[in-house]
Amino acid sequence: MPFRAPVSDYQFLFEHVVDLAQVTRTERFAEADNDVTDAILTEAGRMCEDIMAPVQRNGDLHPAVLENGVVRTSPGFADAYQKIAEGGWIGVGADPEFGGMGLPHTITTAVNEMMSAACLSLQLNPLMTQGQIEALEHHASDDIKSVYLPKLISGEWSGTMNLTEPAAGSDVGALRSKAEANDDGSYAVTGQKIFISWGDNDFTDNVCHLVLARLPDGKPGTKGISLFIVPRHIPDDAGNPGVANSLRVVSLEHKMGLHGSPTAVMEFDGAKGWLIGEPHDGMRAMFTMMNNARLGVGCQGIGAAEGAYQYALAYAQDRKQGRTPVGDGTGSIVDHADVRRMLATMKAEIFAARAIALSCAVAIDMSTATDDTEAKARAAYLTPIAKAFGTDTGIAVSEMGVQVHGGMGFIEETGAAQYSRDVRVTAIYEGTNGIQAMDLVARKLMDGGEAAYRLLDEIEENAEIARSTMPELAEPVWEATETLRETTEWLVAQKDLNERFAGAVPFLKGFARVLGAHFHLRAAMGEGMYGPRTKLARFYITRMLPEHVGLLAHAVRGAADLYALSEEDLSV
Amino acid sequence: MPFRAPVSDYQFLFEHVVDLAQVTRTERFAEADNDVTDAILTEAGRMCEDIMAPVQRNGDLHPAVLENGVVRTSPGFADAYQKIAEGGWIGVGADPEFGGMGLPHTITTAVNEMMSAACLSLQLNPLMTQGQIEALEHHASDDIKSVYLPKLISGEWSGTMNLTEPAAGSDVGALRSKAEANDDGSYAVTGQKIFISWGDNDFTDNVCHLVLARLPDGKPGTKGISLFIVPRHIPDDAGNPGVANSLRVVSLEHKMGLHGSPTAVMEFDGAKGWLIGEPHDGMRAMFTMMNNARLGVGCQGIGAAEGAYQYALAYAQDRKQGRTPVGDGTGSIVDHADVRRMLATMKAEIFAARAIALSCAVAIDMSTATDDTEAKARAAYLTPIAKAFGTDTGIAVSEMGVQVHGGMGFIEETGAAQYSRDVRVTAIYEGTNGIQAMDLVARKLMDGGEAAYRLLDEIEENAEIARSTMPELAEPVWEATETLRETTEWLVAQKDLNERFAGAVPFLKGFARVLGAHFHLRAAMGEGMYGPRTKLARFYITRMLPEHVGLLAHAVRGAADLYALSEEDLSV
Repeated sequence: MPFRAPVSDYQFLFEHVVDLAQVTRTERFAEADNDVTDAILTEAGRMCEDIMAPVQRNGDLHPAVLENGVVRTSPGFADAYQKIAEGGWIGVGADPEFGGMGLPHTITTAVNEMMSAACLSLQLNPLMTQGQIEALEHHASDDIKSVYLPKLISGEWSGTMNLTEPAAGSDVGALRSKAEANDDGSYAVTGQKIFISWGDNDFTDNVCHLVLARLPDGKPGTKGISLFIVPRHIPDDAGNPGVANSLRVVSLEHKMGLHGSPTAVMEFDGAKGWLIGEPHDGMRAMFTMMNNARLGVGCQGIGAAEGAYQYALAYAQDRKQGRTPVGDGTGSIVDHADVRRMLATMKAEIFAARAIALSCAVAIDMSTATDDTEAKARAAYLTPIAKAFGTDTGIAVSEMGVQVHGGMGFIEETGAAQYSRDVRVTAIYEGTNGIQAMDLVARKLMDGGEAAYRLLDEIEENAEIARSTMPELAEPVWEATETLRETTEWLVAQKDLNERFAGAVPFLKGFARVLGAHFHLRAAMGEGMYGPRTKLARFYITRMLPEHVGLLAHAVRGAADLYALSEEDLSV
Repeated sequence: MPFRAPVSDYQFLFEHVVDLAQVTRTERFAEADNDVTDAILTEAGRMCEDIMAPVQRNGDLHPAVLENGVVRTSPGFADAYQKIAEGGWIGVGADPEFGGMGLPHTITTAVNEMMSAACLSLQLNPLMTQGQIEALEHHASDDIKSVYLPKLISGEWSGTMNLTEPAAGSDVGALRSKAEANDDGSYAVTGQKIFISWGDNDFTDNVCHLVLARLPDGKPGTKGISLFIVPRHIPDDAGNPGVANSLRVVSLEHKMGLHGSPTAVMEFDGAKGWLIGEPHDGMRAMFTMMNNARLGVGCQGIGAAEGAYQYALAYAQDRKQGRTPVGDGTGSIVDHADVRRMLATMKAEIFAARAIALSCAVAIDMSTATDDTEAKARAAYLTPIAKAFGTDTGIAVSEMGVQVHGGMGFIEETGAAQYSRDVRVTAIYEGTNGIQAMDLVARKLMDGGEAAYRLLDEIEENAEIARSTMPELAEPVWEATETLRETTEWLVAQKDLNERFAGAVPFLKGFARVLGAHFHLRAAMGEGMYGPRTKLARFYITRMLPEHVGLLAHAVRGAADLYALSEEDLSV
């Protein structure tokens, strides 16, 4: 079952839906013209098809294991990783001064999504490294940059994020890891970290851990946390991996999916590390990196959805069963109405999630290129939506992919179930989707809703334009946006944040439903009445957009009824 | 993590929501008074807690395997099975003449649900046997009954259903297995069957296969299929297992979940079998058994949801993380609004699905006891809803259970993921949920919608009664029912069944949403304003019922837009 990179979809979205041209018109990204973009996407797509997709099943069947303290990765992963690194795919958006391509984050986003579709467990490795590159670019000293960035960007070394501890998950501020200054300007880092994705591997010369820990004078909570880079092997004077550091992989987790990605419990025992950014300011540095990582995880969900969709479509086109109501009556199951409904739902959802993610990436690029506060606010607002909706889409679409396969979907050899198991964690890590929704209704509405209302204005303005040519699509989008506006106003008016939290997740989902409809409408406008994307837009707007009613009704119910259901009531 | 059987919920539902009393007032079920029912539920609940729940993880960790042609089951399964059999739990509803308890199917339904919650993979074995018992009770000769029923009901022997073949899944009529008459009145059955749940085991003295096959003069399609009972060991004159039959387990499937249940590829090579029912009339016999099996599978979904909910609630009550907005600020995560939203959603959904399933069972019992055509039609109408909504609930609730656990949910040792993987197949087997929805909008609306409208009338009458005392709950239920009525009328008016099929799944889901609200409302009416079930009803009616709007809007879009999206469009 070969994977086919959806390159033409990105190209269409760039041109007609998310307006990548605004990015390439800036001085910062002037070199990323259409020719460059097309060449990069095509090349990346080929790499995903030829190098990554073939090892996808290996990761599931032959999980990474810990042998005598050494992580052994799945068959074929080392080779595939080398080719990812050699192709420059880790540093698509990284600083050219250190070997990166310096392309817009929008391109990185598309490439990451394709890589996720081809092999999610392996893709997670470069994704972690990208986050580290970004944190170092923004917050590290020149010395650290010159030692680490070239190796990370080239892929010779890889990077990890070490936040979570057994008693400090969503509440990072509760962490207990400590750091004490050494005499040489470095620090001794001590503590245990859990859920460390790609905590080690057998194919990079070094593994560099970004570790959150507290200095002796660090306050309790998030404001007393500092960030350190702690390499597995300490770089020698020439910048090559030298003596082993005092850290180790204690164990690997046995997970529901993503078996190819070793999830480690890490032990740091006075390990040598270097401060990144200012003391006690680690959370800020971490957030720089986490924001884009959140978008990256959203794209993991979309990628998994794309892979699952391609599997399901191929199966439905091949499998013959029952009399089908269209064609000559001997067609494959793709001709059954309910199977087609599932496939159309999957495709329409992927398109919506992809458009939201790319639109978020464009806003990030505009913010990088112009330092414009509106672009910044837009990126900040869209990030939790892109993360949660992208990963929810990954789960829902891969789950539907299993269903399209019927009985074969439950059989592991088919490969459909793997997408469903692998992608499950994306709704949890990098901030659970509940955390994303709370971020959206609290921090991202702290501006009194300005960023949200600007988006809603934009949607309505676009719908106004479309009203004359495709009223049956434009009108429902406009009306749903009005409902969403009222909902947003209700949330903004709640002073007690818990009133907002009680409806946060349905609000985020409802916002994504409407945004998705907006981007589908733009696709239809870009394509004209009879194109495939217009038909897909009609499916989405007439059949899926109405879900916003239920979601937004839930969003404005507040906290009282919820807490009326006491812990005891829940136990009856 | 001990499992606690939700006995009090059944008792409440019997009394206040689904009116079990109408069943026990009949002559047929007069003996099943409250005392008997309570004793049975309590005893069954204890068995589930003490015997079945402790082996649940074993099934996942140590899957059934095929060794030298022999199936070896998971550790502890054989012992647990013996206790299930000894307790009489296989024949709760079976004919007392052959050793059954002869209790209402409603009691069987509750017991099966508890058993599913405790250990789904093991429970599937008795569920298959129950289906076989029922088919034999209705369609077998007295000779066959006297040999097989006592052994099946006592659990000495187990039963399977053999329908599916590689090219005949949802389309059973395409099967190729053959049967030819032997000289002694038996038949020689030949063919390969796949996806045979509990195709063999190492703890019953015999395994009896109900096999669909075609006689030489059988027409193509479903009308030419006959049903045979084909035992692993041919009963001798004394009715004990004698010589081995010409059949074997070829292989076991490697599945996403339900590892404790061996799913076999079966090969019948001129195996000796006996005709059940009339020649070429096998589908009718199979449907007798499949209807109740469908309800049984719906209850598997609900059971898995219950188990997953208990896991999630226990975790949420134990886990401390972050400042919580209620209580003293040091509470567990159950106090976070979004966690409470998830738990309330899970509990409310389980209650709705359980009420629908039990209401369906009550209709089955009334139909058995009185042969009333309205009861029959009601049971027939509710069956696909109970199956699809019960299993959808199993999937959605167990998925949410993983989310409540955060990172721990993805770690297999926690046990949350197992529910999610195990229950996944329930939306597929015994007729996919798409098939259930097609059955609902086609066959079950063939009466011009009578059975549906009677249900809707009942819901509105009940809401009218509730209007004076709890208008804020009654009014939305009444209004949603009106929308559902219009939707049903639209479907009934479509002569072309494919117009209905295009919206079948959202219609079924929307119907279930409204039915669920009805039963929640009845619970509130039975309990009064301040009870826990009334608060749960308020949660469901105000936050979950509004989803019917989106679902029912989707249901009436018809087929044209769907097929406008050609196979080629789906491949773009």
